[in-house]
Amino acid sequence: MSNTSRDTIFIGKKPLMTYVTAAIIQLATQPAVTIKARGLTTAIAIDVAQSVLSKTKPAFEIASVTIGSESLVAADGRNRDVSTIDICIKRAAA
Amino acid sequence: MSNTSRDTIFIGKKPLMTYVTAAIIQLATQPAVTIKARGLTTAIAIDVAQSVLSKTKPAFEIASVTIGSESLVAADGRNRDVSTIDICIKRAAA
Repeated sequence: MSNTSRDTIFIGKKPLMTYVTAAIIQLATQPAVTIKARGLTTAIAIDVAQSVLSKTKPAFEIASVTIGSESLVAADGRNRDVSTIDICIKRAAA
Repeated sequence: MSNTSRDTIFIGKKPLMTYVTAAIIQLATQPAVTIKARGLTTAIAIDVAQSVLSKTKPAFEIASVTIGSESLVAADGRNRDVSTIDICIKRAAA
């Protein structure tokens, strides 16, 4: 419900397999899915991508990995920069 | 001393700025530097890359980001897969 676009998975605090399953389900009907994360969950995003690839090997591959940073307003009102990662997984060419 | 190749920086447990400074020093004399990390430090590698880019803007840019996984033998003798990230930063085209 929190995803506005159906082909994007935002990594949060749920167990890893939640996101792996969600990504594989999306990839069953969509040509590509993007896994997005920021801050410390970026490490989990990479784990999710690797799990998806190893469980579905060799059907999918990594299309692109993009890193960036985003400015957030922290609870104390100051700006904080957090790192982000976007991993796009697509169906491998036959 | 721990780096075999001079153009690679491995992210460990030192403070973030240690790696940022090391990367900027390398980039002063080398055309490109690769930041490597695995496991939970992958998130820190992205922070380091973003810090290097923001402090030297617009002199450098991200050449490539590669994610993968590596099999390690844990203390209990079992294999564990850990995620890895390699971020290559190069001098921006003038």
